[in-house]
Amino acid sequence: MQKNILIAQSGGPTAAINATLSGVIREGLRHEVIGNIYGALNGIQGALERRLIELKSQLTTEKQFKMLESTPAMALGSCRYKLPAYDKSPAVYEEIRNIFHKYGIGYFFYVGGNDSMDTALKLSDYFTACNDDIRVIGLPKTIDNDLYGTDHTPGYGSAAKFIATAMAEIARDCDAYNLNSVTIVEIMGRNAGWLTAASVLPRKAGAAVPQLVYMPEVPFDLSAFLNDVKRLHAERHTVLVAVSEGIRFADGRYVSESEQSDVTDSFGHRYLSGAGKLLERLVAENLGCKVRSVELNILQRCSSHLLSATDINEARCVGQAAVQFALEGRTGVMAAIKRAKNEPYAFDIGTVPLKEVAGLERRFPLEWITPSGNDLTDDVFPYLLPLIAGEIQSPTVNGIPEFFNFNKAVV
Amino acid sequence: MQKNILIAQSGGPTAAINATLSGVIREGLRHEVIGNIYGALNGIQGALERRLIELKSQLTTEKQFKMLESTPAMALGSCRYKLPAYDKSPAVYEEIRNIFHKYGIGYFFYVGGNDSMDTALKLSDYFTACNDDIRVIGLPKTIDNDLYGTDHTPGYGSAAKFIATAMAEIARDCDAYNLNSVTIVEIMGRNAGWLTAASVLPRKAGAAVPQLVYMPEVPFDLSAFLNDVKRLHAERHTVLVAVSEGIRFADGRYVSESEQSDVTDSFGHRYLSGAGKLLERLVAENLGCKVRSVELNILQRCSSHLLSATDINEARCVGQAAVQFALEGRTGVMAAIKRAKNEPYAFDIGTVPLKEVAGLERRFPLEWITPSGNDLTDDVFPYLLPLIAGEIQSPTVNGIPEFFNFNKAVV
Repeated sequence: MQKNILIAQSGGPTAAINATLSGVIREGLRHEVIGNIYGALNGIQGALERRLIELKSQLTTEKQFKMLESTPAMALGSCRYKLPAYDKSPAVYEEIRNIFHKYGIGYFFYVGGNDSMDTALKLSDYFTACNDDIRVIGLPKTIDNDLYGTDHTPGYGSAAKFIATAMAEIARDCDAYNLNSVTIVEIMGRNAGWLTAASVLPRKAGAAVPQLVYMPEVPFDLSAFLNDVKRLHAERHTVLVAVSEGIRFADGRYVSESEQSDVTDSFGHRYLSGAGKLLERLVAENLGCKVRSVELNILQRCSSHLLSATDINEARCVGQAAVQFALEGRTGVMAAIKRAKNEPYAFDIGTVPLKEVAGLERRFPLEWITPSGNDLTDDVFPYLLPLIAGEIQSPTVNGIPEFFNFNKAVV
Repeated sequence: MQKNILIAQSGGPTAAINATLSGVIREGLRHEVIGNIYGALNGIQGALERRLIELKSQLTTEKQFKMLESTPAMALGSCRYKLPAYDKSPAVYEEIRNIFHKYGIGYFFYVGGNDSMDTALKLSDYFTACNDDIRVIGLPKTIDNDLYGTDHTPGYGSAAKFIATAMAEIARDCDAYNLNSVTIVEIMGRNAGWLTAASVLPRKAGAAVPQLVYMPEVPFDLSAFLNDVKRLHAERHTVLVAVSEGIRFADGRYVSESEQSDVTDSFGHRYLSGAGKLLERLVAENLGCKVRSVELNILQRCSSHLLSATDINEARCVGQAAVQFALEGRTGVMAAIKRAKNEPYAFDIGTVPLKEVAGLERRFPLEWITPSGNDLTDDVFPYLLPLIAGEIQSPTVNGIPEFFNFNKAVV
């Protein structure tokens, strides 16, 4: 008997998340035991609201699949809804089960980060407890690369490639002038420095930048930072600094918090901004040289014009493998990337129990940070380099990216 | 008798400025009357400090030329030095003339914006007054597209393509969530809205964004802005706003001025940033919905991983034509792009007297702004679309851009 697939996307956007969706649809189309392939709009929240659309008929050509794979952010929409615990809200679980039965769902794929894996785990546990053969597979997705159980996460490679490229370009921009300057590039990552780590990749393309790297994993010291800059200015004009948005003082406060609590502007408004802006002001006030801060901002997660071919390929493979795992009877697992070897780079897709992933954050290895706490060791390169390898020519029309749009008529 | 070329780059970086340098060197190599080709490090300031390097021997392969053409920001370095008037500082002019004689310079090429054209004009007038046959040609370069005498400026097309691409991607990121939100994208442009105008280009790739566009050419009204957002939220979740850094109130004050102290650069230009942040705060305080601002920042001018093929080709042609104009005996002129036709797009390189360009700013046409002042008319498209056409695969190594580096040993 045929059963149907339901797939949904959740959490923060990445540039690779639709390649995983593409992989699920591609593989779903290959198996006769699979009937319809539905997408829930806006994650599990949309599933609860019965906002399901039919996907199979919407992707009929390789060109459409390719366009979907280079479309950034959730093509099905996202949500930040976290499923409550079963004993708090059993009705929500029953409602989901009813909806899944109504639509003949036998396989549920949830693409997201650690919160989404928590939702997938809860549903999987619930269906198992009900003796209901609805298989739930989590699919990893986050630019933050902070999921346990997988060597790295789809979406991270493309974000890392954007950050590395932007750093290389910004370094050239900084060097154009023959005067002392400091440029502070603020990179996403609230608790883990994985994205900030990508800032050192230009060193593998002949550019010795950045000179300073500050990660959330190391307590941040304002006077040590100023001394670092002063020391570097003795030997060079331009100092390029990569800083994670999530750097914290030794007492655990985010550096960006001091902005929000202490500083007000001329209207008496609180000045809301990040770690980069604070360091910019600190340099201006204490060192008096030209200084600017650059927030790479949301382009880090949505710049589909600069994808890692490795990342998009892996994201698609994760989706394809997930369908196979579900058909093999697996449930309550996340599809995970296993690094087979580095040279040449090779990977496999395996599984990891969702309970080993859900709600946890994987930090950047402390041993890859130099003892001084303001730079990384060369150990990062064998890990990072394969993940940003390869370019993709994303489709354009009139010189502008052309993205895939689903017909969102609810079935 | 052979004479030598001196070329220098000035002002703010662009992603196309080295394609013009490449064009000058390519063409210089073709003519036997040209001896050496020198580059001054850091513009006319470097020339005054006798920091000249030899270029001819450093570019011997097509691969090197191509790499130079996709290297962002001045490969020779830049300066913000403005030549004083002759009657104020005749000694500076005599010093430059001595240096030019010492190095046998017969042709001086200065690549820059309107301030650099002012320097070129002053030198050209001086050499002419001295009856000295040193020919001075200005070469346009600015992402701001605000130079008179040329249909558009090299560097603008690539910046416009980056802005259009980023807007298209950010629009997808915004639409991922099913809740009311406002995203304000702040785009460069002190006095002219040319760059902000590029934000509407995604409309030619199927994305009806942004919903609101605010240009420096139209007085900005805070309450009208809030009403615009409120009106749009009645019909849609996400409102995407493109705003120029240089928007001003009706009384002429920059919107960003309330954010900043009166910092000016060495030309007396006010240092701007923060219009987007101010609007972000305004929306948060008055409308209470999710809001964020994104500053596209310096990637607009240095993102060489996303070049307009048209722009790079034109930038190179401008350099090549400038050498031909100098050899024909022209001086005191700027090489300028003349649009021949739109479909298919074709251009010629002509000349325009530097005195019609120097120190002037070309504004965005008011008739291309809608009467409501918060959007553009479709008249922008025939002008803009050809300028962003075509993609270039810039060279990479290890997945990261590979840039050209001159040996900067002074001759």
